Amino acid sequence: MNKHAIYHILDTPYAYAKDINTLSVTLRAAKNDIKICNIHYKSRYDWENSFNVEEMKIKDTNNLFDFFSTDISVERNRYRYFFEIIDGEGNRFFLDERGLRGKEIRRKEATAFQYPYIAPADVYNEEKWLQEAVVYQVFVDRFCNGDKSNDPENIAKWGDDVNEASMFGGDIQGIIDKLGYLEDLGANLLYLTPIFKSSSNHKYNTADYYKIDLQFGDIEKVKELVKKCHDKNIKVVFDAVFNHSGADFFAFEDVLLNQEKSKYKDWYFIDRFPARLEDVNYYTFADNVATMPKFNTNNEEVKNYLLNVAKYWIDEIGIDGWRLDVCDEVDHSFWRDFKKDVKNHKKEAIIIGEIMHEASSFLKGDQLDGIMNYPFKGALVDFFGNRTIDAKMFSEILSINRNIYMDSITRQLWNLIGSHDTQRFLTECGEKVERMKLAIAFQFTYIGVPYIYYGDEIGLWGGEEPESRKCMVWEEEKQNKELFDLYKQLISVRKDNPELIYGSYKTLYCEGNLIIFERSYKKEMTIIAINNEEKQVEFKLPINSLIKDLINSQISNVGENIYLKSMDFKIYKVLKDN
Amino acid sequence: MNKHAIYHILDTPYAYAKDINTLSVTLRAAKNDIKICNIHYKSRYDWENSFNVEEMKIKDTNNLFDFFSTDISVERNRYRYFFEIIDGEGNRFFLDERGLRGKEIRRKEATAFQYPYIAPADVYNEEKWLQEAVVYQVFVDRFCNGDKSNDPENIAKWGDDVNEASMFGGDIQGIIDKLGYLEDLGANLLYLTPIFKSSSNHKYNTADYYKIDLQFGDIEKVKELVKKCHDKNIKVVFDAVFNHSGADFFAFEDVLLNQEKSKYKDWYFIDRFPARLEDVNYYTFADNVATMPKFNTNNEEVKNYLLNVAKYWIDEIGIDGWRLDVCDEVDHSFWRDFKKDVKNHKKEAIIIGEIMHEASSFLKGDQLDGIMNYPFKGALVDFFGNRTIDAKMFSEILSINRNIYMDSITRQLWNLIGSHDTQRFLTECGEKVERMKLAIAFQFTYIGVPYIYYGDEIGLWGGEEPESRKCMVWEEEKQNKELFDLYKQLISVRKDNPELIYGSYKTLYCEGNLIIFERSYKKEMTIIAINNEEKQVEFKLPINSLIKDLINSQISNVGENIYLKSMDFKIYKVLKDN
Repeated sequence: MNKHAIYHILDTPYAYAKDINTLSVTLRAAKNDIKICNIHYKSRYDWENSFNVEEMKIKDTNNLFDFFSTDISVERNRYRYFFEIIDGEGNRFFLDERGLRGKEIRRKEATAFQYPYIAPADVYNEEKWLQEAVVYQVFVDRFCNGDKSNDPENIAKWGDDVNEASMFGGDIQGIIDKLGYLEDLGANLLYLTPIFKSSSNHKYNTADYYKIDLQFGDIEKVKELVKKCHDKNIKVVFDAVFNHSGADFFAFEDVLLNQEKSKYKDWYFIDRFPARLEDVNYYTFADNVATMPKFNTNNEEVKNYLLNVAKYWIDEIGIDGWRLDVCDEVDHSFWRDFKKDVKNHKKEAIIIGEIMHEASSFLKGDQLDGIMNYPFKGALVDFFGNRTIDAKMFSEILSINRNIYMDSITRQLWNLIGSHDTQRFLTECGEKVERMKLAIAFQFTYIGVPYIYYGDEIGLWGGEEPESRKCMVWEEEKQNKELFDLYKQLISVRKDNPELIYGSYKTLYCEGNLIIFERSYKKEMTIIAINNEEKQVEFKLPINSLIKDLINSQISNVGENIYLKSMDFKIYKVLKDN
Repeated sequence: MNKHAIYHILDTPYAYAKDINTLSVTLRAAKNDIKICNIHYKSRYDWENSFNVEEMKIKDTNNLFDFFSTDISVERNRYRYFFEIIDGEGNRFFLDERGLRGKEIRRKEATAFQYPYIAPADVYNEEKWLQEAVVYQVFVDRFCNGDKSNDPENIAKWGDDVNEASMFGGDIQGIIDKLGYLEDLGANLLYLTPIFKSSSNHKYNTADYYKIDLQFGDIEKVKELVKKCHDKNIKVVFDAVFNHSGADFFAFEDVLLNQEKSKYKDWYFIDRFPARLEDVNYYTFADNVATMPKFNTNNEEVKNYLLNVAKYWIDEIGIDGWRLDVCDEVDHSFWRDFKKDVKNHKKEAIIIGEIMHEASSFLKGDQLDGIMNYPFKGALVDFFGNRTIDAKMFSEILSINRNIYMDSITRQLWNLIGSHDTQRFLTECGEKVERMKLAIAFQFTYIGVPYIYYGDEIGLWGGEEPESRKCMVWEEEKQNKELFDLYKQLISVRKDNPELIYGSYKTLYCEGNLIIFERSYKKEMTIIAINNEEKQVEFKLPINSLIKDLINSQISNVGENIYLKSMDFKIYKVLKDN
């Protein structure tokens, strides 16, 4: 047996409470190395009975490892367990807190792993509505200008080239005007970039967290938007820019004015006084962005101020959650308190962090419900977009990404392919729309919440910011209708087939540029094949059933060879075993 | 290279903030498999400069793995890094968020590991006074009866056989009377089992958290104890029994009286009403202990009640911390709030959990400062006490234990060899005191806080509870003076040699029943050799220096062979390299 590969720890995702009565347990082993992996378990205060034994199943696999997993339950939710591992040659090993041992040594109950108790307060409650959602991100100034009366001065002409300072007049009324469009598309989670008072077009440098920016509308208009969204079963998520304020936020203005004497001097990290915009001698967002001084969220006053903002908009407008800007540069204790406050004010509100990398310390259930899944985006850009990786590497990256978090969290990650902070996906594809179609076929059939950056669905292209923030194109003749229809169809396929939302994931084949995978949930199964190559491929599926092509509704028998055309994909529903 | 062995994650102990400006990074690899492990790192917003490169050193090792580690710093504490790993054959691999790759592929800054920011609020502040301490645990009813006037009725005669209900009259005055004894011994952290009003002799079923048990004394007497301890530089830690109350605690009494109508019905977990002691139809401590109903600490009222208790005794008496009974069955969010409150009231107060198993989810820095290290105790019992494991297995268990937590936490674990909940160590040794001497030589020279259960130091023996809670023996002729003197000497050796407290640990030799290890700190080095075998062994140390035997002060040249007698140990200070 490959002893170095064996891994288990008393922490997510290897041991965690799925609910108050269920412990999920996972053990990692080398791929194809283990024949049987049993968990022996019982209540930690049960001194009379012997251990229950249950065989664990392979839940996921990648190039190096198999992940054995199972759910267990004991009375009063206090667990004691160890593993029995039998390799291909029949050698038997045991794993407990003392490590891996190869012979039948005296095992002690005291040295078993112990998940001491599932405390209700520690259980992570998944949000099924989030898992079932399709996100649509709107960059407000660029989506639709519905009210000319609130246009800023020196407004640029809709559709003109974009520069860092351009203002185009997009607003809340514009979004209201286009709710029918969103409804037609099928997206049902509207995420807005910031709408609070701010001098920039992106509004990530907030001047006033309690005021809607006048260029976008007023609070009544926002209430109208949220109400109309809710009437159409569309949820609304706002952008919480709590890592930093604008330089024109009252507290920072006071610091600039009164310096050491300012009541707010500890609201920021000032290197030395006098703090000056020209010197940027204070901590900022990113690399010395003078207009975005970083908040000291370790300061209870700052924390309370921002938490009150978060609660205010939930109570006042009834939003369905917050997306957290630069979430990863704010401390964990801030987000823990944020979660308590937000969920107390609206139980089903969601909290999604902008974290562009592995984020397990934020995703153990005590802080966020999910993050914007940039590693997913990176894999799709590199496999479908610029083709710098093959299907094997693509599959490996996703497997790593899929096995760091609890399954419920993985189902809640926002699987974007682009945002206002990246090149547009179509541009990543060298504007080859057929590549993008394969990518979205993958996006909507994979685990996690599909995410559409406004305009991607009608073929908007654009390089790095600000080009990626171009105006939405509303003239139908300039929209890629075929792409839009594919989005629409994929959204509907996803909604109709719960295995695409809740199902397990299994790679059936991945070589060269062909990937075939299976999603299963209860008795439902779908098989997806994607041929990211300019030549036809032929394959057989490892099942013997009737299958239905969910794109063209054609039914066929899977026993036959399947031909997948150059740059084509198939989504097959497995109808029944023969 | 053994790819399955490579492990790194963005979480303790693999990546964590040592302080606001220092990130500790560790990578695990197969033992003796890697020639060079470099970390490439820079600020995550530095787009101009190339990565800094630093070679990582092997910080620890065990049967299967080497742990490469280093500390890095970048401006503004926002990190981006990846690893370069070169195996014995010169093959070069890279590890980043996308996993391990064997060829020089296009590495992207976006796929590097990112430790996004060291937030001051998230930095764990170690407690050096705790790391330097020696704990002495007193089971109050059994230590010393200093005040006959508060003796309970039907008191047993001091030293008589113990049963579950025995009361012997030990009290606070008794402890005050023996402070000179503790001072002579050298212990400087007094941990008392519970002293609040309670009907039992152990007092783990609290009736009133705000009253000192009358059998023990009153609040003035406790103040006197703490003041006198502080005068002698002895810290005092109380026992917080917050997992459960006694059945005669006012809230549970109210539940029994008023049932569903009780204001306190949600303070506990009642299966169904009527709740009855006879039916034990409610959640309790351990296996249906009727007199210890489990608190519902998910209830904010309960939480606030108990947190107020914790703060009250710090403010009122000035205690130096809390030991948390059944800590692992109380939720993480409770302990997070507990930490905030306790440290706000007394910055240097310590929080030690009673957790008998791996506890990484409690020891990430946001909850506890340490736990009672039962895995350590288990290893010493099995190697020195009953000899069911050999030096290799002993060393392996400790290596696992040593590499789960941040180093600062490992230095703060309470390394006990017995407590009121276990057999006494001497009894585990079959009363062979020479075995116990070797064990304590190890205990006082290893990483972590040595812990003495009252009486162990004078040769008290005793099987499982209640025998392990026998009365302290104060007649000098019945005390094992030689053992006491060894304890005293080991305490003083530890205090005089900072490497025994702060130093790294390295096994130099471990075969059969001989273990030789090194502790190093700055320029100080001590080598410890323990021969747990009834025959003389002979060995050479892998250094060339003068060494001083810290037990008998003899100086010798290490070039010569060293003879270690049957069941003997040596603690050698390395004086200088020749």
